[in-house]
Amino acid sequence: MTDLVIREDNGAVAHLTMNSPGSLNALSDAMLAALKARFSELAEDTSIKVVVLRGAGKAFCAGHDLKEMQRGREAEDQGRAYFADLFFRCAEVMQMIPALPQPVIAEAHGIATAAGCQLVASCDLAVAAEGTRFGVNGVNIGLFCSTPMVALSRNVPRKVAFEMLTTGEFIDAARAREVGLVNRIAPHEELGAETEKLAQTIAGKLGAAVKIGKRAFYDQANMDLAQAYEHTAAVMVENMLWRDTKEGVQAFIEKRKPDWAE
Amino acid sequence: MTDLVIREDNGAVAHLTMNSPGSLNALSDAMLAALKARFSELAEDTSIKVVVLRGAGKAFCAGHDLKEMQRGREAEDQGRAYFADLFFRCAEVMQMIPALPQPVIAEAHGIATAAGCQLVASCDLAVAAEGTRFGVNGVNIGLFCSTPMVALSRNVPRKVAFEMLTTGEFIDAARAREVGLVNRIAPHEELGAETEKLAQTIAGKLGAAVKIGKRAFYDQANMDLAQAYEHTAAVMVENMLWRDTKEGVQAFIEKRKPDWAE
Amino acid sequence: MTDLVIREDNGAVAHLTMNSPGSLNALSDAMLAALKARFSELAEDTSIKVVVLRGAGKAFCAGHDLKEMQRGREAEDQGRAYFADLFFRCAEVMQMIPALPQPVIAEAHGIATAAGCQLVASCDLAVAAEGTRFGVNGVNIGLFCSTPMVALSRNVPRKVAFEMLTTGEFIDAARAREVGLVNRIAPHEELGAETEKLAQTIAGKLGAAVKIGKRAFYDQANMDLAQAYEHTAAVMVENMLWRDTKEGVQAFIEKRKPDWAE
Repeated sequence: MTDLVIREDNGAVAHLTMNSPGSLNALSDAMLAALKARFSELAEDTSIKVVVLRGAGKAFCAGHDLKEMQRGREAEDQGRAYFADLFFRCAEVMQMIPALPQPVIAEAHGIATAAGCQLVASCDLAVAAEGTRFGVNGVNIGLFCSTPMVALSRNVPRKVAFEMLTTGEFIDAARAREVGLVNRIAPHEELGAETEKLAQTIAGKLGAAVKIGKRAFYDQANMDLAQAYEHTAAVMVENMLWRDTKEGVQAFIEKRKPDWAE
Repeated sequence: MTDLVIREDNGAVAHLTMNSPGSLNALSDAMLAALKARFSELAEDTSIKVVVLRGAGKAFCAGHDLKEMQRGREAEDQGRAYFADLFFRCAEVMQMIPALPQPVIAEAHGIATAAGCQLVASCDLAVAAEGTRFGVNGVNIGLFCSTPMVALSRNVPRKVAFEMLTTGEFIDAARAREVGLVNRIAPHEELGAETEKLAQTIAGKLGAAVKIGKRAFYDQANMDLAQAYEHTAAVMVENMLWRDTKEGVQAFIEKRKPDWAE
Repeated sequence: MTDLVIREDNGAVAHLTMNSPGSLNALSDAMLAALKARFSELAEDTSIKVVVLRGAGKAFCAGHDLKEMQRGREAEDQGRAYFADLFFRCAEVMQMIPALPQPVIAEAHGIATAAGCQLVASCDLAVAAEGTRFGVNGVNIGLFCSTPMVALSRNVPRKVAFEMLTTGEFIDAARAREVGLVNRIAPHEELGAETEKLAQTIAGKLGAAVKIGKRAFYDQANMDLAQAYEHTAAVMVENMLWRDTKEGVQAFIEKRKPDWAE
């Protein structure tokens, strides 16, 4: 397990590296289990304030492990039960990302395709190397990227998502930023540094505020306006009553650095 | 009927041409009926994998037939029943587009205004000639584009839609692509070829996969994340169990072209 | 009250100027009350067809009044009741903007931060001076911008909103337009003229149509497609039956200016 998704911490930033370069970090059963284990671990780790997710080797992630999927067909039910379980486990891992208390940044390079593109879309933020190509290209082999579509279509305009899904064609990093799939772009050799800068910027904030804010961000997304305000106003009241927020506001008024207990 | 919306097939791509150039392809009662008939016909036509919608003459479509609408006022109820029926029929035609099993591509040129802009927004994809102008300009004559707004506001950012609706001003093709109303732009003389290229790319995919994917695309759009994943995971299981998908995946593994029965 | 939010009318356009330049037009209790009073007044004022909201001095608005908030902590409950009331009142003012019968244009310059950025996002339209900076930077002082997020995340793509909220970093006017937070940009010295041009364009339309359209715009936003069409088709029937709309359509057919009673 440990070797499939390597964890290295830099202060309050945890770096997860999908480490199966030979398969372009395919989301095999083992890789999904390793990601789930790492996310579960991080969900409880209060020392970590930001998570970075990246891939070893030439690509970020090329989606599902097709050879393993084909072997699933050998079962008596032609694989029905296995596929149902596989897509459930994959969707579970994807949904763990917005549910994590820490912001998760995808650090994408090479290619991010199918469920690999879904990973990028599922992360809260994404930084990409120039030249990275993003695609939901399952349609090319007769398997429409229906679950990747869930994450993708919540990131980019409708017609952009539909085009990617039905043509199977790639978009490059610049277009990905234009349409909302990626936040920042860096030359390949500066990708790590650019991601680290973003991660450390967020890690420098009051962690409890980022945590309560991230949860509220997704909670309010599908509410109507009145509900969303009722919900988030209650969140802000709680936030205001923290000792560290009182100190943060006071420090701002006094033009000094806050002395946070956290 | 046949002459108002001409159908010409090129392999698995059906081209529908709104053919009332003198009225800038206005959505008259007859034109709406012709579009409905064509869409109904295509919904049952399993030989067709992609639909292209275009307009004959100088413009794609300039919206409702205003003279016909004014004549509707001559009824005893000042037109109330007629207008209710007209907007119902128009909304029915617009909703047939995402409901069709095949992707529908708008091929826009000249102008696409009011319900004509709504047609573009209702299509799954859109290609526009350079210089095409898009507007929801009913407000200029005192008739706010309330139904076109439904389709437009599901394509472009909120403030962009609001500006177009309240100013009645046009946006050009380049801005339309920037905001998500259009996928691709081509010089006027290459518009047909560019659209055909996109259509044939999609027609080259496994039709059943595109069909199941298009339906899932709209079905999951308004679900919350957990529901959307549950729904689309079930879709992917079905997709995986098809003979042609098994072959498509295997062909990819073996680096050869799939031998699809379809 | 009157001095905190100055009202100056230019024909059918009301200009509201937040007038507390020393506090960068902070949304103090008094400022919120003044905005509420002005919006209530305008909701009943049928002579006004468009509202412009701007700030006196160096900035549009820098968000809440932090000194006043800190004083709220002196209560026995550490400010809990005061903060709940404050965020309720602020959310109420924000929600009055889409609920107003007239379109509201934010005229932003300098900075628009935290609840000041929320004001821009809450307006139906926004014009910004070149160089204006937008941020939801409460996270920098330990107070996540949870309520500003409600308005912001309904204007811009998901990852853009998340980045602004968790990094506290500014975006400039050009990026704000690119992502949908701002409609138009003007050089600082032409900001007033550019906003006035947009306001007068809308004020030149049939007011009743803009009013019924604005309401329908927000009403249909969260409906599913079938509901949204049913709702807006009914709106268009009403709109069609007005005397001025009949005249507007006829004038268009006859290529003359409409003779509107309004």
